Amino acid sequence: MSTSNSSFLSDFAVMSSFGATAGGGVDRQAGTAEDHATRAWFSTWLADHGLTEAVDPAGNQFGLAELVPGAPWVLLGSHLDSQPLAGRYDGAYGVLAAAHAVVRAAAAAEAGELVPVFNLAVVNWFNEEGSRFTPSMMGSGVFTGKLPLETARATSDLAGTTVAQALGSPSAPGTAPTLDSVARYAEIHIEQGRILEETGTQVGIVDKTWAAAKYRVTVDGDQSHTGSTRMVDRRDALYGAALVIAAARELTEEFEPGLLHSSVSQLQVLPNSPVTIARQVVMNLDLRSPDEAVLAGAMELLGKRIAEAETRSRTEVSLALTHQWGLNPYQPAGVQLGRAAAAALGFSHRDIMTVAGHDSTNLKDHVPTVMLFVPSVEGISHNEAEFTRDEDAVRGVELLTEVARRLVRGDSME
Amino acid sequence: MSTSNSSFLSDFAVMSSFGATAGGGVDRQAGTAEDHATRAWFSTWLADHGLTEAVDPAGNQFGLAELVPGAPWVLLGSHLDSQPLAGRYDGAYGVLAAAHAVVRAAAAAEAGELVPVFNLAVVNWFNEEGSRFTPSMMGSGVFTGKLPLETARATSDLAGTTVAQALGSPSAPGTAPTLDSVARYAEIHIEQGRILEETGTQVGIVDKTWAAAKYRVTVDGDQSHTGSTRMVDRRDALYGAALVIAAARELTEEFEPGLLHSSVSQLQVLPNSPVTIARQVVMNLDLRSPDEAVLAGAMELLGKRIAEAETRSRTEVSLALTHQWGLNPYQPAGVQLGRAAAAALGFSHRDIMTVAGHDSTNLKDHVPTVMLFVPSVEGISHNEAEFTRDEDAVRGVELLTEVARRLVRGDSME
Repeated sequence: MSTSNSSFLSDFAVMSSFGATAGGGVDRQAGTAEDHATRAWFSTWLADHGLTEAVDPAGNQFGLAELVPGAPWVLLGSHLDSQPLAGRYDGAYGVLAAAHAVVRAAAAAEAGELVPVFNLAVVNWFNEEGSRFTPSMMGSGVFTGKLPLETARATSDLAGTTVAQALGSPSAPGTAPTLDSVARYAEIHIEQGRILEETGTQVGIVDKTWAAAKYRVTVDGDQSHTGSTRMVDRRDALYGAALVIAAARELTEEFEPGLLHSSVSQLQVLPNSPVTIARQVVMNLDLRSPDEAVLAGAMELLGKRIAEAETRSRTEVSLALTHQWGLNPYQPAGVQLGRAAAAALGFSHRDIMTVAGHDSTNLKDHVPTVMLFVPSVEGISHNEAEFTRDEDAVRGVELLTEVARRLVRGDSME
Repeated sequence: MSTSNSSFLSDFAVMSSFGATAGGGVDRQAGTAEDHATRAWFSTWLADHGLTEAVDPAGNQFGLAELVPGAPWVLLGSHLDSQPLAGRYDGAYGVLAAAHAVVRAAAAAEAGELVPVFNLAVVNWFNEEGSRFTPSMMGSGVFTGKLPLETARATSDLAGTTVAQALGSPSAPGTAPTLDSVARYAEIHIEQGRILEETGTQVGIVDKTWAAAKYRVTVDGDQSHTGSTRMVDRRDALYGAALVIAAARELTEEFEPGLLHSSVSQLQVLPNSPVTIARQVVMNLDLRSPDEAVLAGAMELLGKRIAEAETRSRTEVSLALTHQWGLNPYQPAGVQLGRAAAAALGFSHRDIMTVAGHDSTNLKDHVPTVMLFVPSVEGISHNEAEFTRDEDAVRGVELLTEVARRLVRGDSME
């Protein structure tokens, strides 16, 4: 079956009905009934469009178009899972765009418009979001060997359900590719920022990721009575946590606008009782910057601000650095191929950095990778109001198709 | 069976083994297996000491000594449930002290040492703590008609278990007293503060409660991506909440030490995901003061500080006042009776205010009430390290016994 821009848009509307929320978004965290419903629909879509479905033990779902028997794969993909109360586009747009691009490029190869040297497949990476099962980018992490398969499958959510239980035993006729058999990777995503919109640019070619430092912060105080304990005797872990949250935010004001992003978004309070002062708070804390020197300066300053918060709240704050990376470039050849594809289609384009991680962040460390952005209205992300205009969405499918054609015919990525 | 100070201490040690924690405290939230185990042990204790057990539909557990058939009751009691990871004394000390006092005073009546005009009973009020099922002081609230029985029984914990389910269907041979049949109430509790300790006073006679205002605070922001959303575009509900928590704490520094206590100890974050900025935080916020003018000033100032937090965090903060009370006096005659009992025993004593609420706070609005305190080491409360010395604990049993003797013989409470 062939595809068109209008079939893409109607497919996207149907896909967005799975886990649809009252606010116009979707809620389909990894391995939930809503995620499984979307995967089942996608499975039918693959079969209807002549692609062979395969699922690997990490839950990654592939749609294979074998053009050159035995040749390595060009993979195009993203993820169908979402954050809670999320937008329709994040990840899901990229999977459906990849599926349409695979069908279009495969049809071009079958029609003799290009001579393939690789096979072509779409992939729906399992649990990119990491909101139900930590860490994020789990499926691509296992695929690229960054995360042991058994660790991923044994990971449990807050209710004690493991990834293995949530995945069940999917069956599919095909054999899933492994990293060894992948030659190239490409992914398209909404920008989740405002640069394309503000500069009036149609598409972005991602050249690097922002530098980032992610911490787990533990604030230790003492339980006591919320009413009767004298203020000077309190060692209130939630007050300590509040000072750290405010300090992390206010740190960003010490740098030029846009040079430092910080956030705290998840916390657990013990015992979280209305009449007992918290003995412990555990929370995440992220710092991100497009400038490694700024990030280093912010990390140092954070340590000082935390020492002040400790003194003021009479608590002990420990910072465990869980993830850190510098400015992380995508292969220049991939950026060049993306630019050339956009130029060939007459799309205005610019190089752009990504603040968020993507499955391509894992893949690019192993295979030549092309990462593309389409505009996000007002940069709204992880919110039901997330939006990308139809004309931008279909332009992205066209661009990804052009990239797929160039990759599958073996254009140089050296 | 009779009682002695040494049997009180050994009973207290046995009772403290139910729900015992590694840190030397107890964890027996209302209606849990640990609470039920403590109640079952107490049921046996009542039978062993010749008291008739009765349980009412709100889960209040009574031990009855009928001295004057058909006469109204003098009730002595407190609660056996605890906060999570709490101390051994809070509530449980008061129930066991009441049980021993009932047995001692009933024996005195039977021995002809006094002529009773009332009956005598110990009561274990259900769910005083309110950590698992809100509100606190639930059992005494139902008993005094402040909370409808069916509302209480339908209240569910975070796992969806209701009070009715947690209580099960206890059976006991006796008929539980009702408010109409109660003539007097007395309760003893650890101070949960440092005044008795710092002034070297052996016992306290509670003459009033602090004034208090309790709020539910809702902070509304917008979900967005923790990494890619520009700082100026964020409406981070957790940052807004942090500013409110810090403001509530720092409000106390605007008044003389000891004149204002504030706390935030429980909060819920939505969606509480590591990569999504919080759209909403809901939390408690309490202000308490021994001076009504200070409390009024603090409430006004809180409104201003919250407006500043809203502006700074671009969130909307709504304050719902859920409970408010002024300086709430105990009956002067009850205070006078407590002082006289302490003086008769040669115990040094002083009038004292209570910051925390107690079941007696409910009872005193309906029947003449005597509320007594024994010292708490360092005022530590709602913490496994909570401690009251044995000599202070047994002195409290002696004082409560003397109060019970005076109440049961009908000393004036006008």
